[in-house]
Amino acid sequence: MMQAYVASSSVHVHAQSLRGERAWLCGTRVQGARGGAYARRGAVAALTMTATAPVSQQQYALRFLDAETALQVQQKVGTPCYVYDMKSLRAQAEAMLKFPNAFGLTVRYAMKAAPNVAVLQLFKKMGLHIDASSGYEIRRALNAGFEPHKIYMSTQELPADFKEFLDMGVGINACSLSQLERIGKACPGARVGLRFNPGRGSGGTGKTNVGGPDSSFGIWHELIPHVQQIVEKYGLNVEKIHTHIGSGSDPVVWQEVSNASLGIAAQFPSATILNLGGGYKVARTPTEKGTDIQQCGEPVKQAFEKFASDHGRQLKLEVEPGTFLVANCCSLVCTAQDVVSTGASGHEFIKLDAGMTEVLRPSLYGAVHPVVVVPRGRTESESQKYVVVGHCCESGDLITCAPGEPETLMAVSLPKTVIGDAVVVEGVGAYCAGMSTKNYNSFPEAAEVMLDLSGKIHVVRNRQPAEQIWQNEKALDDALLS
Amino acid sequence: MMQAYVASSSVHVHAQSLRGERAWLCGTRVQGARGGAYARRGAVAALTMTATAPVSQQQYALRFLDAETALQVQQKVGTPCYVYDMKSLRAQAEAMLKFPNAFGLTVRYAMKAAPNVAVLQLFKKMGLHIDASSGYEIRRALNAGFEPHKIYMSTQELPADFKEFLDMGVGINACSLSQLERIGKACPGARVGLRFNPGRGSGGTGKTNVGGPDSSFGIWHELIPHVQQIVEKYGLNVEKIHTHIGSGSDPVVWQEVSNASLGIAAQFPSATILNLGGGYKVARTPTEKGTDIQQCGEPVKQAFEKFASDHGRQLKLEVEPGTFLVANCCSLVCTAQDVVSTGASGHEFIKLDAGMTEVLRPSLYGAVHPVVVVPRGRTESESQKYVVVGHCCESGDLITCAPGEPETLMAVSLPKTVIGDAVVVEGVGAYCAGMSTKNYNSFPEAAEVMLDLSGKIHVVRNRQPAEQIWQNEKALDDALLS
Repeated sequence: MMQAYVASSSVHVHAQSLRGERAWLCGTRVQGARGGAYARRGAVAALTMTATAPVSQQQYALRFLDAETALQVQQKVGTPCYVYDMKSLRAQAEAMLKFPNAFGLTVRYAMKAAPNVAVLQLFKKMGLHIDASSGYEIRRALNAGFEPHKIYMSTQELPADFKEFLDMGVGINACSLSQLERIGKACPGARVGLRFNPGRGSGGTGKTNVGGPDSSFGIWHELIPHVQQIVEKYGLNVEKIHTHIGSGSDPVVWQEVSNASLGIAAQFPSATILNLGGGYKVARTPTEKGTDIQQCGEPVKQAFEKFASDHGRQLKLEVEPGTFLVANCCSLVCTAQDVVSTGASGHEFIKLDAGMTEVLRPSLYGAVHPVVVVPRGRTESESQKYVVVGHCCESGDLITCAPGEPETLMAVSLPKTVIGDAVVVEGVGAYCAGMSTKNYNSFPEAAEVMLDLSGKIHVVRNRQPAEQIWQNEKALDDALLS
Repeated sequence: MMQAYVASSSVHVHAQSLRGERAWLCGTRVQGARGGAYARRGAVAALTMTATAPVSQQQYALRFLDAETALQVQQKVGTPCYVYDMKSLRAQAEAMLKFPNAFGLTVRYAMKAAPNVAVLQLFKKMGLHIDASSGYEIRRALNAGFEPHKIYMSTQELPADFKEFLDMGVGINACSLSQLERIGKACPGARVGLRFNPGRGSGGTGKTNVGGPDSSFGIWHELIPHVQQIVEKYGLNVEKIHTHIGSGSDPVVWQEVSNASLGIAAQFPSATILNLGGGYKVARTPTEKGTDIQQCGEPVKQAFEKFASDHGRQLKLEVEPGTFLVANCCSLVCTAQDVVSTGASGHEFIKLDAGMTEVLRPSLYGAVHPVVVVPRGRTESESQKYVVVGHCCESGDLITCAPGEPETLMAVSLPKTVIGDAVVVEGVGAYCAGMSTKNYNSFPEAAEVMLDLSGKIHVVRNRQPAEQIWQNEKALDDALLS
């Protein structure tokens, strides 16, 4: 096997003091808008140090690929190519299926994180259910073979065909009064879930978040009397309470969240299920802190037990992880298609044949994704500092940004790279293939493959033929243009 | 005709002082990463005021639509739907075709801004040429009917089939030494353009930009001797010098840019064309400052005349506008599919049936896009403050953000809105349909229509059938999943 290469990172030194301040102020975005999982102040302070001081200890290695497999993907499938790892996916699902619970557990995969059919099928086989965020995701999950009764939707936009879904057995969390009213009117007596905003989230004030007064997600907790009126009016059967507020990795926060949510469940005696949503952080880099499921779940379990003893109801727990299940289970294999310099006072840049079209999170959140270079056809002992950029004609198409700073270049130490080398961007399982600026600059969607347990590669998404990008367009009649 | 409604905007008052500081520090992103067109400090200071103080004077009206047409689009085509306006597109192209020039002008449309076939065909009819940013864009322009010799490519990623393009008459700006070397090796004696990074841009230090040492775009100016060696080695015919650095709206900057670029052109005696790229700002809101083409072009013209008198060469001018040609020539017609509240200490939210899947610029840059509500089937005299959000299950899917602040909610005053009302997001012509998180949450690509000179609507892109989203996926063999 070829040598495993590592990267150490440091931010270049221009405008250091300004950037330090920015890093602190903007740092709440570091962990990204996923599930409201914002870094809290303590974490931000640490990141400020990362953003202003050289950090030579931050070393990255290939996560689940080896150099040979990365080069095999490059040569046989072509790049850019997302590589999912079946072994890692299984391990994450198994860990989540052991979430401490008192009276039963359902794990729903938040499929928006990575909706590829192969990922869906694997999780289906492992007994996971589906959290769908739109009617289209329901169709996609059905297409992947999920039985309707294993799919539950929580959406900002109730689809026009929601009754058809309810009739086939798909569940719906009413996420607003109007959604509940529409469901009641169309399907009196139906079973429903209720998604609430319990009035607090894990992010800061005044910022977008999935909980608290600045979040539009779920029914505001003060509106419970209105909810009860609608439920009564249509004879709805409230089977579930849902309170996703992005709870992060702190067990104390989990305890508070559980208690707040159980307090709502107490007001709906018919409910048999409490869904606490997702927002389980993972560490994409060694300096990030992931969620210890056992540690966070223990107080949840205890709270459910106390609720049963107080109220005589044994609630089943549901969780809806997205990032946790897939983030570190997929790597993007790219090719260094150019290496350029801006001189002694500038940088060496590696230009990938991928970019924000495949991995938008650095540009959107200032997210840090480890980059690993795999030299092709040689060993490489020299290293050099590089800024890694994407292929779009867009100044913000940057892969190695400073933490929380989408537009600040970060030079990382990598093996000396030549055109044609494979470059692997790690931690791209969640919200990359599923959430990127697809077709920008008319680049086609990348291929996706699954690495099976024996190390064999299977294509699970063919590279998009370019013509598909404009297949829905219609030219105007020439006479109109004159 | 129905009443035209207006909006006044103000930022809600939480954490005011912190946000004020953030707005200043982060404000350089306000004008977005497009063409390095960053707001300079003066503009940022003004925006800080906008972000911290109520601004009741900031009123928005429909730009080119009227209420009836917006409702017609909503009812006949469905929402979300991009509406291009032929009259506005023509006016912008006509303005750009009058760019002051001494010895001739070619206007190239930077098609990445909005690559719809109807837009391409209209500009083709008006005599514009094409700036393509990838090989795929060349194919798309050819497909729209552009003759190869009217297409020139400047790309971060030289496509594998570049020789085919050169052979058919498409021009290529070599944007790196390796691109130039590959072109020379494959096509000795070919005509080429050279894109340089002249060592300065219009943005700040340490930030991504399209000019200066922090930009990977173009050949670093200090490498001219290397360029000349490669040119000589392959007998290449350098016909064009290109120096897009995002010059903004300041005539003084334009003069400096012209002189720096002409200084490079002086070193390539065979060059007959100087291309100054794009980066012409437009004002999407009344407080933003657009580019006065006549004012910015005049010093450019004078510089070309002086160059001719000094060097005996009459250079032809090329410009490559994207945003300028399309930004304000397209509006997104959406529907308010929900209206929710987070109580007295919170907000009223309007939820659109669109979001970052159609308009990513607020989430990515903190860009401000005017929002106009068109009540359906009634007149509305009451107004209310709303935060307008997108339909994705994503806390960052925010349409009315504070300027330069992608995650800070901004409440805007709008007519009292009910579910079903049309909501128009203005200024979405550039980098919206072409650059968004397509298919996130499995939402299909929106429809696009063209409003012709007689006010008639023509579909120029059908709404994507959902199945197309996963048509390239391949399921795994069931045995692999066990």
